Amino acid sequence: MRATFSIGSDLHIGGDHFVVMAGPCAVESRELLFAAADAVAKSGATMLRGGAFKPRTSPMSFQGLGAEGLQLLAEASHRTGLPVVTEVMDPRDVGLVAESAGMLQVGSRNMQNFPLLREVGRQPKPVLLKRGAAATIDELLHAADYILNEGNSNVVLCERGVRGFDPSTRYVLDLAAIPVLRERTQLPIIVDPSHGTGDARYVPSMAAAAMVAGADGLLIEVHAQPELAKCDGQQALTPAIFANLMAKLRALAPLCDKNLCDRSLLRGAPDGVAGRKGDANRSNSVEDEVIAP
Amino acid sequence: MRATFSIGSDLHIGGDHFVVMAGPCAVESRELLFAAADAVAKSGATMLRGGAFKPRTSPMSFQGLGAEGLQLLAEASHRTGLPVVTEVMDPRDVGLVAESAGMLQVGSRNMQNFPLLREVGRQPKPVLLKRGAAATIDELLHAADYILNEGNSNVVLCERGVRGFDPSTRYVLDLAAIPVLRERTQLPIIVDPSHGTGDARYVPSMAAAAMVAGADGLLIEVHAQPELAKCDGQQALTPAIFANLMAKLRALAPLCDKNLCDRSLLRGAPDGVAGRKGDANRSNSVEDEVIAP
Amino acid sequence: MRATFSIGSDLHIGGDHFVVMAGPCAVESRELLFAAADAVAKSGATMLRGGAFKPRTSPMSFQGLGAEGLQLLAEASHRTGLPVVTEVMDPRDVGLVAESAGMLQVGSRNMQNFPLLREVGRQPKPVLLKRGAAATIDELLHAADYILNEGNSNVVLCERGVRGFDPSTRYVLDLAAIPVLRERTQLPIIVDPSHGTGDARYVPSMAAAAMVAGADGLLIEVHAQPELAKCDGQQALTPAIFANLMAKLRALAPLCDKNLCDRSLLRGAPDGVAGRKGDANRSNSVEDEVIAP
Amino acid sequence: MRATFSIGSDLHIGGDHFVVMAGPCAVESRELLFAAADAVAKSGATMLRGGAFKPRTSPMSFQGLGAEGLQLLAEASHRTGLPVVTEVMDPRDVGLVAESAGMLQVGSRNMQNFPLLREVGRQPKPVLLKRGAAATIDELLHAADYILNEGNSNVVLCERGVRGFDPSTRYVLDLAAIPVLRERTQLPIIVDPSHGTGDARYVPSMAAAAMVAGADGLLIEVHAQPELAKCDGQQALTPAIFANLMAKLRALAPLCDKNLCDRSLLRGAPDGVAGRKGDANRSNSVEDEVIAP
Repeated sequence: MRATFSIGSDLHIGGDHFVVMAGPCAVESRELLFAAADAVAKSGATMLRGGAFKPRTSPMSFQGLGAEGLQLLAEASHRTGLPVVTEVMDPRDVGLVAESAGMLQVGSRNMQNFPLLREVGRQPKPVLLKRGAAATIDELLHAADYILNEGNSNVVLCERGVRGFDPSTRYVLDLAAIPVLRERTQLPIIVDPSHGTGDARYVPSMAAAAMVAGADGLLIEVHAQPELAKCDGQQALTPAIFANLMAKLRALAPLCDKNLCDRSLLRGAPDGVAGRKGDANRSNSVEDEVIAP
Repeated sequence: MRATFSIGSDLHIGGDHFVVMAGPCAVESRELLFAAADAVAKSGATMLRGGAFKPRTSPMSFQGLGAEGLQLLAEASHRTGLPVVTEVMDPRDVGLVAESAGMLQVGSRNMQNFPLLREVGRQPKPVLLKRGAAATIDELLHAADYILNEGNSNVVLCERGVRGFDPSTRYVLDLAAIPVLRERTQLPIIVDPSHGTGDARYVPSMAAAAMVAGADGLLIEVHAQPELAKCDGQQALTPAIFANLMAKLRALAPLCDKNLCDRSLLRGAPDGVAGRKGDANRSNSVEDEVIAP
Repeated sequence: MRATFSIGSDLHIGGDHFVVMAGPCAVESRELLFAAADAVAKSGATMLRGGAFKPRTSPMSFQGLGAEGLQLLAEASHRTGLPVVTEVMDPRDVGLVAESAGMLQVGSRNMQNFPLLREVGRQPKPVLLKRGAAATIDELLHAADYILNEGNSNVVLCERGVRGFDPSTRYVLDLAAIPVLRERTQLPIIVDPSHGTGDARYVPSMAAAAMVAGADGLLIEVHAQPELAKCDGQQALTPAIFANLMAKLRALAPLCDKNLCDRSLLRGAPDGVAGRKGDANRSNSVEDEVIAP
Repeated sequence: MRATFSIGSDLHIGGDHFVVMAGPCAVESRELLFAAADAVAKSGATMLRGGAFKPRTSPMSFQGLGAEGLQLLAEASHRTGLPVVTEVMDPRDVGLVAESAGMLQVGSRNMQNFPLLREVGRQPKPVLLKRGAAATIDELLHAADYILNEGNSNVVLCERGVRGFDPSTRYVLDLAAIPVLRERTQLPIIVDPSHGTGDARYVPSMAAAAMVAGADGLLIEVHAQPELAKCDGQQALTPAIFANLMAKLRALAPLCDKNLCDRSLLRGAPDGVAGRKGDANRSNSVEDEVIAP
């Protein structure tokens, strides 16, 4: 039996649920964030992704809007009804981020940032833990143990590509990690084909392949105008291509014994302005947890 | 438009066709070969794979049955109606192997064995070219150029995993190579999840993922009794698991705009003993070739 | 002109100076630490290494003695006259570690822990920045920029091996990173052959090779009784082998235009009990800095 | 005791001998070859390298002069007294190449070209076997076994870089392979820093590091006019830089217990026109072989 848990009353992760977390790489402005959020909500995404604190290779690159970005994400979540997943990089920011987000992301560069892992393990929101670019699968599981050991059992693992030698793609998306992880853990497993390939042309096929390979969800970058993105624009899908991908995933889901919950139907809000508010980022309910802390 | 070509009158590769090449890693004995061949034919494989000349890391390992293995493959092909794909390692053996096989395989270790590439380019049978474990996609395409330049335009490219750092799998199966190759070449692309993962537990999910990612076919190891295999037994599917996989592929094919030809239906020979004989390994017809020499 | 800076009055890093930082992987007990510290001081090491906060793959492994370990390191430094380099993992610990250490180490897992990089950039002690196992050289230099940008120009870069596919060694020690870095930066470059190979048998040859390749120093694990080490014992040199290595390095240094300062001679304290005290971990002097903040 | 063997009466490989094989990547013309040959002989190289049959990634690239190139190499060998090492790619060419060369090279792309390995194992000239770019050290040793098993015990192993993720260098030169190989085999080990780094700026430091790490020799590309080279010009040393490197190696050799034989002194032919002729490429003598066939 695979682990499952919930965010709010109607978002389930794991088991036969398939979650699609979509949105821009970084929160850049209210207009761009809302445009992306509305679009992904309309197409049936189950969570909104977006970075307020951005880990960037160079200190000269755009570092994210910080607390202001968190506030915008909260507004976008309220607007669309989609819970937010967003990255936290600093153990001192965990409380702040946990207030706004439905799920905390630990990025690939921080997979072995043990003080951060412990800190996210001490708060109740679910944690998305991304595999490091040079991390073995066992190292990923040991990193998850740091969170689990603090009492937070709601950890989602994310394959996002490992370092390879071929510049054809940014990383090598290791889809075999999905069945390997399914042998070794009950934790839900999602895939990030956006970072894994670094190229929007390759994202839809890898997203569909991940579902068929047994993933429990996807993390996908969508930008209203990718050519204007301050970060990673070349890997962001346009809203139209994302909508096509969602249709494809919906068609494949029954063959994969997966249920692709369409939150826009739940809320009767196909225009992205949801009726359900406030509890979108509510702490996870405990009733359907199956992972012991 | 993707390139297509045929082997015999009814086996098409490329376009909307999906080819499944299945069989044992190595030809070990008539009994084991026929058992595997009958099983994969019954489940709907389109070609029979099997090694007569085996490239083995150590000279102490089983090196294949050589010419005797080719003869057994010809018998198995005759018996099942499935054309054979088998590896050739030595440019001096190309003529011999081309007599028995419907398609010649150049293995991953020989992707840049240029005399061999030229030699298989000078004979008319289609060639399956496997990506080297440290080869970039551009290097694979350049290797294919060595064959194409000699006048043989019927080249199928095969992704079979690249070297990685995680011992969880034998290689890292680079499924993103599929959409990358589709951007760069018209040649058909197949995937070998058996070598790509090295573990039978991971083969079905990676095989299905490859189809969904846009592959034109699969190369899969099936052994009647994997625990007895002289080579790579841990990555061979049993006939029962292979049959399940074929059912899954048949269900997925329509969603991928692929046509999974069931040769057993064509021949009314679900028990693996085909009615069509003799021309199973016939040289490819030219009428539907679209690749210019 | 290469950058140089000092720790205390007589320890110089960069330029024609060659620094050897040696000691145990982790501080385990007063006895073992002092035994190692005395041994490396006697053989001519220029700094004492030792971990109080240990980043370990699994939370079940020994995590270091923490603040108690820092105290023991300070005692060992006082005893031997060797300044201490020790790792800091948590931005909240930077002040604490900076009080005890002559140099702060940012480990390979934290190379892109940007809050930590900023924090060590805001305090005056020199920083040893280790290359991540999947980091390109340019990514290492960008990570150093995070420290430099905060005003701390005393950064030492450390090559310690990148992920590779061959289990013969723990990592692939990329010695070509030395000449590559010399083309791209003035910052001093040291090499950690202990982590880079993971095997004490290979450390001496790689240490000598690093010096000849142009490194400004070494980081080497030495343990009084490697078979008892709680962490990484298989890669620790015994005091006797370390002494032989130091003799080899002394012989090679003149051919590499390097000056291998023997601190034991400076202090007339070949038994490891130094006369100079108190200022061993003094903040770096500024008079010979050549790196602009 | 390390294995040693001889080429002609005065060139020894292995043991305390250090061999430097230098020359152009490819034989391009009589003038350029002789200029390079004279230069490397004058600086004290012990063998002349140069490719007549060139394995090139693309069939459109210069493929070498073939038999004509072998003839030019024989002339250059006669002229300088330096035995020639040159690559053979096709098992059908082994006899031809063995006539002209003092040592046959099996290139990295052919490390697991087993028919070729067997063929070079059946002739008496020594064989230089280069490690494949994705080959583990054990795979290299197994490949050597294919040669040894045919009765040719004079195999020299060559580390030339493995695939890595950092475009800063063409490959990752794995110098730790030297001590690892010394643990596992008696066969002599040489290093090719030219292909290993792909950049002439990094070759001298890596060459010196290889000697200090325990290598038995080097394979170095030297071109009279690198900017005109038809292949790999960016990694070729100029004659002047090669001369400086030889001086450095001579200085380091005594510290490495190595004897860097200067063949130009032996022959009183500092201008590169040797007195000794005819036997430069003579088959290896057997009296000092210590490797059992």
